[in-house]
Amino acid sequence: MPQNASRAAGRHFLHIPGPTPVPDRILRAIDTPLIDHRGPEFSALARRALDGIKTIFKTTNPVIIYTATGTGAWEAALVNTLSPGDRVLMVETGQFASQWRNMAQKLGLVPEMIPTDWRVGVDPAAVEARLKDDKAQTIKAVCVLHNETATGCMSDIAAVRRAIDAAGHPALLMVDTISSLASVDYRHDEWGVDVTVGGAQKGLMLPPGMSFNAVSDKALAAGKTARMPKSFFAWEDMLTMNRQGFFPYTPATNMIQGLVVAIDMLHEEGLETVFARHERLAEATRRAVRAWGLEILCRDPNAYSSTVTAVLLPEGHNADAFRALALEHFNVSYGASFGPFAGKYFRIGHLGDTNDLTVLAALAGAEMTLSLAGIPHRKGGVQAAMDYLAEAHAKPERAAAE
Amino acid sequence: MPQNASRAAGRHFLHIPGPTPVPDRILRAIDTPLIDHRGPEFSALARRALDGIKTIFKTTNPVIIYTATGTGAWEAALVNTLSPGDRVLMVETGQFASQWRNMAQKLGLVPEMIPTDWRVGVDPAAVEARLKDDKAQTIKAVCVLHNETATGCMSDIAAVRRAIDAAGHPALLMVDTISSLASVDYRHDEWGVDVTVGGAQKGLMLPPGMSFNAVSDKALAAGKTARMPKSFFAWEDMLTMNRQGFFPYTPATNMIQGLVVAIDMLHEEGLETVFARHERLAEATRRAVRAWGLEILCRDPNAYSSTVTAVLLPEGHNADAFRALALEHFNVSYGASFGPFAGKYFRIGHLGDTNDLTVLAALAGAEMTLSLAGIPHRKGGVQAAMDYLAEAHAKPERAAAE
Amino acid sequence: MPQNASRAAGRHFLHIPGPTPVPDRILRAIDTPLIDHRGPEFSALARRALDGIKTIFKTTNPVIIYTATGTGAWEAALVNTLSPGDRVLMVETGQFASQWRNMAQKLGLVPEMIPTDWRVGVDPAAVEARLKDDKAQTIKAVCVLHNETATGCMSDIAAVRRAIDAAGHPALLMVDTISSLASVDYRHDEWGVDVTVGGAQKGLMLPPGMSFNAVSDKALAAGKTARMPKSFFAWEDMLTMNRQGFFPYTPATNMIQGLVVAIDMLHEEGLETVFARHERLAEATRRAVRAWGLEILCRDPNAYSSTVTAVLLPEGHNADAFRALALEHFNVSYGASFGPFAGKYFRIGHLGDTNDLTVLAALAGAEMTLSLAGIPHRKGGVQAAMDYLAEAHAKPERAAAE
Amino acid sequence: MPQNASRAAGRHFLHIPGPTPVPDRILRAIDTPLIDHRGPEFSALARRALDGIKTIFKTTNPVIIYTATGTGAWEAALVNTLSPGDRVLMVETGQFASQWRNMAQKLGLVPEMIPTDWRVGVDPAAVEARLKDDKAQTIKAVCVLHNETATGCMSDIAAVRRAIDAAGHPALLMVDTISSLASVDYRHDEWGVDVTVGGAQKGLMLPPGMSFNAVSDKALAAGKTARMPKSFFAWEDMLTMNRQGFFPYTPATNMIQGLVVAIDMLHEEGLETVFARHERLAEATRRAVRAWGLEILCRDPNAYSSTVTAVLLPEGHNADAFRALALEHFNVSYGASFGPFAGKYFRIGHLGDTNDLTVLAALAGAEMTLSLAGIPHRKGGVQAAMDYLAEAHAKPERAAAE
Repeated sequence: MPQNASRAAGRHFLHIPGPTPVPDRILRAIDTPLIDHRGPEFSALARRALDGIKTIFKTTNPVIIYTATGTGAWEAALVNTLSPGDRVLMVETGQFASQWRNMAQKLGLVPEMIPTDWRVGVDPAAVEARLKDDKAQTIKAVCVLHNETATGCMSDIAAVRRAIDAAGHPALLMVDTISSLASVDYRHDEWGVDVTVGGAQKGLMLPPGMSFNAVSDKALAAGKTARMPKSFFAWEDMLTMNRQGFFPYTPATNMIQGLVVAIDMLHEEGLETVFARHERLAEATRRAVRAWGLEILCRDPNAYSSTVTAVLLPEGHNADAFRALALEHFNVSYGASFGPFAGKYFRIGHLGDTNDLTVLAALAGAEMTLSLAGIPHRKGGVQAAMDYLAEAHAKPERAAAE
Repeated sequence: MPQNASRAAGRHFLHIPGPTPVPDRILRAIDTPLIDHRGPEFSALARRALDGIKTIFKTTNPVIIYTATGTGAWEAALVNTLSPGDRVLMVETGQFASQWRNMAQKLGLVPEMIPTDWRVGVDPAAVEARLKDDKAQTIKAVCVLHNETATGCMSDIAAVRRAIDAAGHPALLMVDTISSLASVDYRHDEWGVDVTVGGAQKGLMLPPGMSFNAVSDKALAAGKTARMPKSFFAWEDMLTMNRQGFFPYTPATNMIQGLVVAIDMLHEEGLETVFARHERLAEATRRAVRAWGLEILCRDPNAYSSTVTAVLLPEGHNADAFRALALEHFNVSYGASFGPFAGKYFRIGHLGDTNDLTVLAALAGAEMTLSLAGIPHRKGGVQAAMDYLAEAHAKPERAAAE
Repeated sequence: MPQNASRAAGRHFLHIPGPTPVPDRILRAIDTPLIDHRGPEFSALARRALDGIKTIFKTTNPVIIYTATGTGAWEAALVNTLSPGDRVLMVETGQFASQWRNMAQKLGLVPEMIPTDWRVGVDPAAVEARLKDDKAQTIKAVCVLHNETATGCMSDIAAVRRAIDAAGHPALLMVDTISSLASVDYRHDEWGVDVTVGGAQKGLMLPPGMSFNAVSDKALAAGKTARMPKSFFAWEDMLTMNRQGFFPYTPATNMIQGLVVAIDMLHEEGLETVFARHERLAEATRRAVRAWGLEILCRDPNAYSSTVTAVLLPEGHNADAFRALALEHFNVSYGASFGPFAGKYFRIGHLGDTNDLTVLAALAGAEMTLSLAGIPHRKGGVQAAMDYLAEAHAKPERAAAE
Repeated sequence: MPQNASRAAGRHFLHIPGPTPVPDRILRAIDTPLIDHRGPEFSALARRALDGIKTIFKTTNPVIIYTATGTGAWEAALVNTLSPGDRVLMVETGQFASQWRNMAQKLGLVPEMIPTDWRVGVDPAAVEARLKDDKAQTIKAVCVLHNETATGCMSDIAAVRRAIDAAGHPALLMVDTISSLASVDYRHDEWGVDVTVGGAQKGLMLPPGMSFNAVSDKALAAGKTARMPKSFFAWEDMLTMNRQGFFPYTPATNMIQGLVVAIDMLHEEGLETVFARHERLAEATRRAVRAWGLEILCRDPNAYSSTVTAVLLPEGHNADAFRALALEHFNVSYGASFGPFAGKYFRIGHLGDTNDLTVLAALAGAEMTLSLAGIPHRKGGVQAAMDYLAEAHAKPERAAAE
């Protein structure tokens, strides 16, 4: 058998934590002849999108749709609510929290970072403590990630909200849900979030190129006095035009064709079923990792992510070489590692349009690559995942039989 | 978790032994605006298809392309070469051999069937013996399947050719390669086959709707005197028009768009690599079945199919219920059982655009369904397949390192 | 401007009388991952197709769906109802009537042809007269084309039925609607047709690769005693399996995905609206031809086709050269000429997914090519067509205003 | 015929001046399974895109690719080169020039606008005069549109460059080519432009969702000291990552799949041929307008746009009602009017993947709608356009014959 023999054949298993595999039905919706973005057909489409996306964020307030990737929606959250020199409190849960901090800095804000070891979620007590210290209330916003894509640690947003309230602090709460939205339960209104940042290319199962800001009334009010320069990302024109089913400038019409289908598909499966599926696949993945005798980066079981699991390799083994080998032999992609852990772990994405068998395939690819790479591990990871999944599927069968 | 929770999500794993998963590149080629089937663009396309398909059959003679599924090409083989009342010798290797026999009968030919227990391939000695008995040479054709899709048993076509020659018999040799073409090595010219019947929807990775007759000079000569009525399937007009890059009546132009891409893809991977991949995936599948303690329907290791493996369930367990359960819980399709074995086995297709991980996923689905269905088996099938595949991938790595 | 400068740019205008432009929605439906042709999802799809297609033929009897182009459905009509040596009465309305006759001959039937000059439809009186002469009732079927694609002449099928009845003759009535179905009103049951032959790639707006037989009870009864050899095209197995939502052998599953969308689209527009649209576009085309001072091949205004108009060029001008020039300069395809008129006319298809502007574009391409080719003509064809169409659109506006 | 009968049928004619009809080949390239945006396959793709796009802008410097529509690239041009309070000189050629000015204002810059009556392009002499007045050189940039999409007036960019040079002024020259790029000759390097802003959804034939900044060394140098806050649009990280074939944050991978195909298609046709085709179609359009007796908004023949023609309706006739009527009856979209001319003109886009027949169809739709709407006009617009186009195609024929 020649080397790389299998490379070209069969479907690629895309198990980075996003972009995720886009369902054919959505790809085909995007593959539609262009329509006039100022005509009646578009207006009807846009209204469906603008109404539908609210159900995903669980908000009754408007959600702004940007033609930009998630990074753009981060910027939108900051520039629409803050003024030059404003302090923002962030928590360094990992690479993406750091990047958001860097962005705040570049934009002329003054971010302050609560550090972590990158292996846990946000500590609400630490947030509360810091806010209580801020007697002058110079901190204008608390910015956290619901799910730190880089580490596979989630944070309890409702608890962060309670922390802010307990501190009696008026800071806005801004939350990045880029790698959790539509995969893990999220409640913009109920949890009292002021700006939620979302993206298209993860749980929403779209290609990259679209992102979102869900906004509270408080955030909208803050927007009235915010003095950060802004134009492309400005909420105001968007909200005005959106009310008539249009956009102030040409939107990504074909992405919106895909978006309405994505929202339909999520509701056809049922959001709660979608969330349960993600939890199940995440637990199966963790059982595989433990069976291999490897370590999960996230060290707080309460913070385990339902969308991505980061797997530490033993000392002396390079995770990037591991990923390249897996791609070469098994046509599967895993996510990279970052920052203090660069080269030390790989991430298995188990989100979006995935199911039991796609995740088992991803785990099989990992287990075989561990062998190929000569990385010390125990066999049986896939077996452990299968045992768990078969049991999960057996329960309702048994319940139905009773 | 609600029952069927995972049903809608993620990609379907299509592991029937055809139609097989069509690569996106081919689906997209078929998804092309229609062109004039009598214009210069089509003519250039048709020539590419007509030339390219020869390389797949390994013939320098013409290959006729039909807008019909494989059953149509079976009929074409018979009606173009035979006359009413002609005797044809067939071997009952399974369901599809039986159906071809039934067709011969319906068409007014006189088929004679060498029986088997459906668990082996063709016995060339039996063919030779029967032909030697046919002193009057009333048998006009020997019709066999290269791969019996219903059972997963392959036959040695070169040996059948030698058997005919050893009998000194002038019968034509007709071979069905519907479920082996472009997956297993096949040599129309070298093996002295007179008519090879092929289909689009298996190793060629196209949707169903196209089939083929590769022909020898002897078959073409037989066609001159054959008296079976025929029109749609008649070779003659086809061969005449094909020479100019056209067809006597409207062909399935968009399928031909897909065909040229399919041929390109097979050569990009390399036919020998394609064959080795199919062998590897078949062996991995068999190792899983053995590890489960289940029986492979094919009882002759020399006849194991590289494209499909039929797995017998223990007495008292219904294979159709098993398949329905797998579909419901794990979004995977396996093939049905037939004839004397109806309900007793399921088939795992491992052909076409498949790779190590898709086959492992199909095996994982089967192993978990065995559990769900309460069918006695040992765990470890997927593990055995992974062990084999990891080893297979390790060899070239080690060889390269030395 | 370099020669052929515009060739590559912009959409091709496909104005042959089929295959017709396939709507993107249908192409995208065909561009769908393959499903198990023996699973529940397919069964539901097949039932939708089998039920829906009846509404297109206006029949309550079954319609058989073939994976074959129209030529195959011609053969199916003959072999399922007739016996070797049976006489069939045909009318030579043009090239396709001749080809059907040739097929009958090849299949061992005895066709008899009522000649025409290729410029009219079927004369019911001639059919009646011939049948009355057939005292021995040796004629088993009358085979006519609803629309002769080669000439643009339609025939009155209800009148042919009355002619057969008036002759008191038991012959079956078989009708080819390949280039009229779903474009022109057609009533299989009401008109007492025994077998209607239809195709996918014209009014049904699908790519070529699928065809149909709608059948009467009388045709089914005839099938019981018909002795033509048949297998691929045999009705019986099809009808049995179709009842359960399946096919006796692998059907073209992805074409069926397209078929159900095509049927939906026809009903969304409304069949009567579809027919009116075809009539309007045909009349616009004829007005353009007359304004050019050119002759329409069809010399009976009652027989004008709503789907295709054949345009005679003046003596000494070659229609194939004209078509090549139009393709080269204006990226438009017209249909070829045949038989006694080979090279003398070109055909403008105005059927399927076409509208006022696509037909005007096709006419503009023709008018400019007449100039380019130096063919004597008057200008003003497009203008005449526009005048007619603007008036046609103005009427309902005015009516609504009153 | 029921009202709106033809609405659903046939392809839509999208003749707004962008988004333009996307060729199927590009839509299909975008309709591709997602790949890892940090893997080797993407890196190879990105390099092709980054290299190829330079040839479209005719620059050897880097071009930055944004996941944002053109408005985003406008902002990028400003924030990467300027500092708060900087003066920029603009020319009010129409709606889009005004919007860019508004953006500058919102971002905290100090725009100054040279007015026009919206019916001409930029007057280089006025630019030169204003710059000469600016002794203190407080104007940091001159921002103009190559083609004012709202009016169909083009400007001579090389002349603007000469005007700046003649004034001896160091201001940067920034040019919007959103509706001219890849349709009209444009030379970033040769004309000494500092920042060129481009978009995907016009001449580049992609859906909206991608835009560009081509940059000069002088612009890059200005970027080192520019103090506008920026992050999403910052050039620096982009340039660094692009060098390795990657992006600092997830790019719109599938749009990049389409971009490389778009660039290939433009070069297959030949950029000069593309430009000539646009000129030809624009001239045909203008001849139609004149034949109707209507007025072209652009009153300077030297400024006629090759991509869009704005047509003034007679007093008392509303252009929006006209457009709605055309859409309803003829399935064609034209562009809207703006500002002082709101409701007074409609725009015919003749750019991107269009050809002679698509433009004639668009003109036919307009001419028939003029009738339907009872708007005074002369017939013969389509005829005039056809006469011109037939002649244009005849010339090379004649030349070849000589």
